[in-house]
Formats: sequence, structure tokens, C-alpha cells
Amino acid sequence: MKIVVLTKGLKERHRKLICDTAKKANAEVCYAESEDAFPEGFESPDIIYGFGVKTAKTDPALKWLCVPSAGVDYLMGPDSFANPECILTNSAGAYGVSIAEHIIAVSLMMMRRITEFYLSSSNGEWDSPKAQKSLKNSRITVLGTGDIGCTFARRAKSFEPSSLIGICRSGVCSESVFDRIYKIEDLEKILPSTDLLVMSLPATSETLNILSRERIGLLPEGAYIVNVGRGSAIDEDALADSLESGRLGGAALDVFKTEPLPSDSRLWHTKGLLITPHVAGNLTVEYTMDKNVEMFCEDLAAYAQGLPMKHVVDRKRGY
Amino acid sequence: MKIVVLTKGLKERHRKLICDTAKKANAEVCYAESEDAFPEGFESPDIIYGFGVKTAKTDPALKWLCVPSAGVDYLMGPDSFANPECILTNSAGAYGVSIAEHIIAVSLMMMRRITEFYLSSSNGEWDSPKAQKSLKNSRITVLGTGDIGCTFARRAKSFEPSSLIGICRSGVCSESVFDRIYKIEDLEKILPSTDLLVMSLPATSETLNILSRERIGLLPEGAYIVNVGRGSAIDEDALADSLESGRLGGAALDVFKTEPLPSDSRLWHTKGLLITPHVAGNLTVEYTMDKNVEMFCEDLAAYAQGLPMKHVVDRKRGY
Repeated sequence: MKIVVLTKGLKERHRKLICDTAKKANAEVCYAESEDAFPEGFESPDIIYGFGVKTAKTDPALKWLCVPSAGVDYLMGPDSFANPECILTNSAGAYGVSIAEHIIAVSLMMMRRITEFYLSSSNGEWDSPKAQKSLKNSRITVLGTGDIGCTFARRAKSFEPSSLIGICRSGVCSESVFDRIYKIEDLEKILPSTDLLVMSLPATSETLNILSRERIGLLPEGAYIVNVGRGSAIDEDALADSLESGRLGGAALDVFKTEPLPSDSRLWHTKGLLITPHVAGNLTVEYTMDKNVEMFCEDLAAYAQGLPMKHVVDRKRGY
Repeated sequence: MKIVVLTKGLKERHRKLICDTAKKANAEVCYAESEDAFPEGFESPDIIYGFGVKTAKTDPALKWLCVPSAGVDYLMGPDSFANPECILTNSAGAYGVSIAEHIIAVSLMMMRRITEFYLSSSNGEWDSPKAQKSLKNSRITVLGTGDIGCTFARRAKSFEPSSLIGICRSGVCSESVFDRIYKIEDLEKILPSTDLLVMSLPATSETLNILSRERIGLLPEGAYIVNVGRGSAIDEDALADSLESGRLGGAALDVFKTEPLPSDSRLWHTKGLLITPHVAGNLTVEYTMDKNVEMFCEDLAAYAQGLPMKHVVDRKRGY
């Protein structure tokens, strides 16, 4: 059994864990810089840990692709896999901590207007106090209650919001931190009483433009939106219109319909929009990388023993 | 009994609470824009709720001054009160929530380098990923475990730091959220294992330059400092030197030795320094204002009945 590791930024301890797990699994491991440079003897590996998108598309011998990302929308095309039986696992579960910290940071930056204070001070200017808002006693709605949504909610709870609502497809979530969980069908019922809407949804046909113009209009005046899932979930033009009209308090987007955000996008100049370049989840965060490698090794051990793997993507659902 | 309210930004519900409490206390209330414009009959009030600094200094008839700030260093001069028996109460306890949110926000902004991403995106530039750090598994030390330090610690705990240490004068703190509490004498023992140092100290002779050049040097490479107490607690030049040398990960100061920060201060240009203009605690935050007024009214009721007041400043300690 041959494994090619394409994942970047591995530390010595990560290589050791992969090496030890592979040994027990009776597998050979090599590290490659890119899909164009697989070492001799590993030209057609059984397993790839990394973004082996091209190999998945062309090599019918690939049995398992483990990607280090949480989202897998880029692998959901009808011709994404030359081997229709190829297993796909992802790293949902590794990014919750990093992305939850991002959500808290940008929410507070907007509500407390630190963005404005920071821009002033970057220009050497001592700004005057401005009206600020607080997470305390705010009504928070989390759209998407996977690892990211739940990890955020556990942190958000400590800020004493007046409500903390989760919304997901099934209406069921094992996480008890939410005051209540609703189904996506109930979204329109919840939006009018949402001060902070956090979106952590995968890109699927069901989530495409889920935050439509009409739904943005249901949010109360001064509401804030944070999107860390996929850019496809928001009608970006409607969001920009609403921000420019001054109806919303602000929005923070880490993900966009097109990335990098095109230089001529109106979003660059939209008032009250905090843009970050898809860096909420990041493998430079030590915990995220540790967890990412651990999850791959956990599944590798299971795979070798023919046991059920934990992180298999349901390709019908798309996540 | 006559009360002048100088505190700004009161809403209808605040005026009602003050009015109801005053009625029960058999007191008359008036609102004034400034100390130079006390309404007729209120020229020499018994009680002032607000920044009645000038009146305290000149009017020996003033019996109680309640300031809406937490820090009272500006009232600790030998001639601050014409009436040596004048009671001084403050609003420590109202600002914890707002300042704790500020600390979390700026800590994450630095550790996750959102400051840099935000500056790039403000210039229409899609920045590349950068090495980020996390509050998870970080070692947090809170210097000053009053309302602010404790309210921050309760929020910080949810981010799963590897340690959460409190340091205060007495070495005793009623808050159980800390892993351990140390005395200020132990500061030098704790600094070398501190990734994030949060300072929420009052300005007293004991806290003057408490974070000296030597002590900054004890922090590990890449450590972060947040100061929300008083600027007098830090050797600002030493901090700037350490930041410029690249030893520290970053610092976020909301308070300074001189405020507003003079336009020729080197701090404006210090690399890795996040400056905010003393806005961490802010009466525009609804909860803070509610709490502020409630605390005054609580003490007013006690004062009228000759009962012990809760928020009296210990002038020997200075807070």
C-alpha cells in the first residue's frame, strides 16, 4: 500500500505520527511537493493525503483521497474521480477552533468599531469614542451547526448573549450549547430576531444563495453578518446594497463567490464590509495542523484494518 | 438632599430609575450639562453623579461624589476634595463586560494577524496567508483580577488556553475561573511562561511602571501584551524597543501615560503595536450604562438609609 503526502507545513512530530501509523498499516509513505512530482515507485499511489485533485480525476487506481480542507465542493463534479469507488475523506473537525476564533474576532471588531479605531490609529490619529455594541445580551444565530458552528457557539456562550440559536438541515444537533435548534425551513422565522448571523455552511445546491436579498431584508436594522463557510451561500450584491444603505450594522466575509476576490469587485469598496482573504481556517495554527494529521492517521489505521473510517464525505450530501 | 447628575448619555429608563430611587431617598434631582451650569437651587449639591471633579475640589459642602469611571487616579491628589469627609464611589464593576470583549478582540486580532489582513483589504489587496497563533493552548496571565480581569478570564476560558493565571496584590481572588492566583511579588516567576499578558490594573504608586524593561525582557519570544488598565503601568519606551526588535509578538494598548497620545509619540510608528484611543470601556455599550446607573442607585438607596454603600473607593489603596 503506497501513500503520497502532499500536505504542506508538516512538523517533525507530524511526520513521525504518519510514519508510525503507516508502519502499523503496512504502508509505504513518501512526501511530494506537488502532483507533478511524485517520487519513483509512487507514480500511482493507493492513498493521497493532500490536495490530490488532479490525480483523483485521472488515476483510476487511487483508492482513497484525504484532503486537508473541511469544504470539498471542488471535488463534487461528476468527473472528479476516475475511480468511482475512491473514498473521499476531509478534515472537517480540524478547523473549528481556528475559525471560531476568527468569528469572535471579526464580530467584536465590527460591534466595537475597532476597525475604525484601528484605521485611524494607523494614520496616527487619536479617534473619538463611537457608539459600540456588545455580544452580551445580543441575539446570535448560527446557520450551520457542524464543527465550526458548534465550536464558535461554545465560545460565544461565555459572552452571555441573550439567545444562541442553531439552524441546520436536520434540526438536530448533538451540541447542547444552543438554546434551541431549528431546521433551515425555519430560517425566515428566526432572522427578524437575529443581531448577529454567523454562517458556516458547506457549498451545496441547497445552500446556494441561501442568504438571499429577501432574507437579508428580514434581519433587523443594525444586524451583523459573518460568513466563514462558502461564498456561494450569500447574494453578494444584495448584501452590498444593504450595507451601503446603512440598514445593516456590518458584515465580515472570509469567503467569496470568486476567490481571490476580483480587483474590480464592488465589495472592496462596500461601506461596513470587513474583508479577509479566506484565512479563518488556516493550517499555520498549531492545533489545526495537529488535529488535521491526527484525523488522517486515525482513518489510516481504520482503513488498514478494514474498519469504518470516521471522516468519510457523503458525496450525495456534498459534505 | 440635592443631587446633580452630570453623567451623559442617559436613556429614559435610566432617568426613571434615578428619579424613583431619589424619590424614595427623599432627594431632589437635576441634570446639568457641565459643572459650570448647575441649575438654580442646585449650586451646592450634596451629591454629584458624574465627573464633578471641580466641585469636589472647591465645594466643602459636597458629601458624596459618584464618578461613572472605574479608575479614580485623577481624584487621588491631596487637594482633590474640599471636604475631607466627602465619600467617593466609582463604577468599577460596570466596565468588565465591555473591556473583556475588547481584550479578546485585540488579542485575536494580533494572534491571527487580522490587523494586517484588514489593512491590506482596506487597500483593495487580497493578502496571502500568514502564520497565525491561537488562544487555544496558549498560556494566559491576567495581571489585576478585579471585575475586568475576572470578566475577561471567564470568556478566555472558553477558548481553552493551556493555562489561565491570575496575579493580584493579595494573591486571593474569589473568582474560581483561574487555574491559580499569585501575588504580585511572583510576577517575575510567571512572566517567562506567559504567551498573552493582560494588564487591568488601577494607577497607583504600586503599579507605576510595574511592567518594567527588565520584566518585558522576561516574557518569552513572540509573547503578546494587552493593557486596558492605566498607561502608567508600562515602561512605554521599553515596550516600543522590544516590539521594534521583533522579540514580542505584538502589543495592544488602549491606555497611555499621556492621553490623547501626543502626535509626536514614537508609539504611533511602533511595529506590531495596536493602538486604540481609550475606548475599551465605553458608556455607549448598553449593558455598561445600565450597570453604571444601577450601581449609583443601589448606593443612593443605601446612603439614604444610612446603610453601607457598595462601591466606596478606598482612598488609601487608590481604587
